[in-house]
Amino acid sequence: MTLAYGVFSHSGGMPRVGARIDGGVVDLAAALGDPVFDAPSLNGFLAQGRAKWREVNDAVNRRTWDTIPLDRVRPHLPFSVGDYVDFYASEHHASNIGRILRPDSPPLAANWKSLPIAYHGRSGTIILSGTPIARPHGLGRDGAFGPTRRLDIEAEVGFVVGTGSMWGHPVRPDDIEEHVFGVCLVNDWSARDIQAFEYVPLGPFLGKSFATSISPWIVPLSELRLAKITPPAQDPLPAGYLRSEDGGWGLDIRLEIAVNGEVIARPPFSTMYWTPAQMLAHMTINGASVRTGDLFASGTVSGPEPGERGCLMELSWNGQEPIKLADGSTRTFLEDGDEVRISAVAPGPAGTLIDLGEVTGRILPPVAL
Amino acid sequence: MTLAYGVFSHSGGMPRVGARIDGGVVDLAAALGDPVFDAPSLNGFLAQGRAKWREVNDAVNRRTWDTIPLDRVRPHLPFSVGDYVDFYASEHHASNIGRILRPDSPPLAANWKSLPIAYHGRSGTIILSGTPIARPHGLGRDGAFGPTRRLDIEAEVGFVVGTGSMWGHPVRPDDIEEHVFGVCLVNDWSARDIQAFEYVPLGPFLGKSFATSISPWIVPLSELRLAKITPPAQDPLPAGYLRSEDGGWGLDIRLEIAVNGEVIARPPFSTMYWTPAQMLAHMTINGASVRTGDLFASGTVSGPEPGERGCLMELSWNGQEPIKLADGSTRTFLEDGDEVRISAVAPGPAGTLIDLGEVTGRILPPVAL
Repeated sequence: MTLAYGVFSHSGGMPRVGARIDGGVVDLAAALGDPVFDAPSLNGFLAQGRAKWREVNDAVNRRTWDTIPLDRVRPHLPFSVGDYVDFYASEHHASNIGRILRPDSPPLAANWKSLPIAYHGRSGTIILSGTPIARPHGLGRDGAFGPTRRLDIEAEVGFVVGTGSMWGHPVRPDDIEEHVFGVCLVNDWSARDIQAFEYVPLGPFLGKSFATSISPWIVPLSELRLAKITPPAQDPLPAGYLRSEDGGWGLDIRLEIAVNGEVIARPPFSTMYWTPAQMLAHMTINGASVRTGDLFASGTVSGPEPGERGCLMELSWNGQEPIKLADGSTRTFLEDGDEVRISAVAPGPAGTLIDLGEVTGRILPPVAL
Repeated sequence: MTLAYGVFSHSGGMPRVGARIDGGVVDLAAALGDPVFDAPSLNGFLAQGRAKWREVNDAVNRRTWDTIPLDRVRPHLPFSVGDYVDFYASEHHASNIGRILRPDSPPLAANWKSLPIAYHGRSGTIILSGTPIARPHGLGRDGAFGPTRRLDIEAEVGFVVGTGSMWGHPVRPDDIEEHVFGVCLVNDWSARDIQAFEYVPLGPFLGKSFATSISPWIVPLSELRLAKITPPAQDPLPAGYLRSEDGGWGLDIRLEIAVNGEVIARPPFSTMYWTPAQMLAHMTINGASVRTGDLFASGTVSGPEPGERGCLMELSWNGQEPIKLADGSTRTFLEDGDEVRISAVAPGPAGTLIDLGEVTGRILPPVAL
C-alpha cells in the first residue's frame, strides 16, 4: 500500500502522527524516535520542509515495520488547516456548468483561459472523511428559507502546503515540490439552491461553507512521480507567471464516485486544464503568502465523457436527467441517508497502483431549528 | 482612553497580552498574575468566554495601574486569525458600486435585501496596522499582466470571535455578545482592476488576498454599550433567523479616512443596513461553526453623503471624478508612497468618546519579479 501520512489514535491513546503503509499504520514517534510525530497534527512535520520529508520517506521505506492494522486505528483530521482555496480548474466542469446556467452564452467565461479561477472557502468546517453531514438550511430558490433541496457533491483533489512562502514573493510553478507536501481527496459538498441565490456578486458562501470533507491519509507528492504527465495543451498561452519550464504538473489520478456503494462516475484528473503548479503560482502572484497547513483544491474534476463528471449537477444535468441506481431509485441531488464515497488511484512503480484512499460522508436529515 | 486589548513587546521582551488604557499599556500577565496573558496572541483569553472577559475588564477598570507609554511598546498582530469573512453590508456602498458598474440596472442586486452578502477572504495575509504594502501584480484590465493601476482602500469595522459555536448549530442574532469579543478597524486593500477581471463567477480573490490590515487594539464589545443604536429599518423584513428580539445591533461608530494626513471621508457605521448580529447569524445558519480568532468584517462603510464614502472607487466615482488634495495633487486610486489612515470613535460614558484606534498603511512600489 502506498506510503501516506496522517494522524491516528488507538487503544484510547492520544492522537499522533502515523504512516500508512502495507495495510497498517506505523507509529512514527515510536518508530523514529522523533518528537515532531508525537503531535495531534502533521503541521510540525510539514513545516520542516522537503529535505526532511524525503529523509522520513526514505527511513519508512527502508525496512519493514510493526504496524497497527488500519481497522484498529481511529483517524483524525490530519492537519490544522490554514487557508482553504478552491479552484475551478476543469474545463469540462466549467463548460458544463456554463451550458446549464447560461445556455445562450459561450460555455466558458471570458477570463477562464487566462487564469485559474478560485475563491476562498471556509477552513473551520473542513472535516474528516466519515463525519456525517446534516442537510444545511438556507435561503434557496426565490429566497425561500428551508433545508437545501439541491445538495450536491464535488469530487476534487486537494494539495496540502508544507513549506510556506514569504509574503510579497510569488512562487514559480516549477517550485511546487518545495512547497506542496502531498495530496488528499476532497468532497466539497455544495447546496446548489443556496449557492444560486447568494453568489452574485461575491461568489459562493453558505452554499459551500457548511462542510468540506477530506481523506485522512495524505500521499506525498514525491510518491506520485510516476503519475506525473503532460497536462492538456493551453491555448492561448497563459501569462508568463503561469508557465512551467519542466513540462507542467499534470497528474494521472483516477477518481471514482460511488453513491450507496454504486459507482456513478469516474472523473479523470489527467484532463484538468490548470495544474496544481499553476494554481500555486497564481495564488501567490499578488504577493499573498501560503502557510504550512494551507489547502488548495482543484475544483470539481470532470472529464469529457458523461460518465466522467464529478458532481450531480452535471451528472443529472441540473436535475433534468435523473441518474438511475441499481436499487431502482433515481437521483438528481442527494437524499437523506445517502452515503457518498470518493476514492482514487494513480500509476505507481512496476505496474502497481498508488492508493489515494477515500473520502466518505453520509447525509443526515436537517437539524431542528 | 478606552480599554482595549492587544499584543505588545517592549525592551526586546517576548510578545505578550496587554490592555491599552489611559495612554499606556498594562502588562496583564504581570498585573493580574494570569498565565493566559503570557502569550503572543489573545486567543487563549478569547476562548475563555464572556464571564472571564467581564471579570478581566472589571479588574483592569477597578484601579490605576502602572502603564508602559504607548509610544514605547511595539504592537503585534493581536490574535491568530481563523477564518476571515468580509461582508457587503452597507446599502450606500453596494448601491454606489451597482450604479458605477451596472448603470442600466437597479443599483442593488435582487438578493441584497434578503441576506447579508459575504465571501471568505484570506486569513494568512491579515497584517498589522503600519505594515507597508507593495503594490500587487496581477491580470488587470483586459487580462494584461502588471502592477495594479487601481489600488483602493476599504474602510471597515471588524468583529473578533471569542467563543466559538458548535458545528451544526446556528447562532441567533441576540447571542452575539456570547461569541463576539470585540471590535477592530479594517482596511481591506483592493486592486480593482484585478478584481474586475477575475471575479466572474466565483467572486473576488487576488484583488483582495494580498493584504488586509487591522488595528492593533481590540475594543471589547461590552465597552461599546453606549454606542449601540437601533439600526436602519429593514424592508422587506428578512427571514426569521436574521431577526433580533432586542432591537438590533446598530453601532454609532464614526470612521475617518485620511490620505497623507488629509481627511478625505467620514463614513458613519450607524447607516449600515445589516448589523454584526445578523452577520453572525447568517454565517452560521447553514451549520457552519465559528471559532476563536475568526474575524468578520462589515465591508466598506459608506453613508448617504459623498463625503461619507469608504473607498476611493466611490469617492472618485471609478476614477471619473478625481479627489483634490490640499497639496494640489489629485487622486483617483492610490499612488506609491501614499499613507492611508483609518480611525474611529464612538460615544462613550458621560459625553466622552471611545477611541477605536487606527489602522494605517503605506503603499510601496511593486517588487521586482
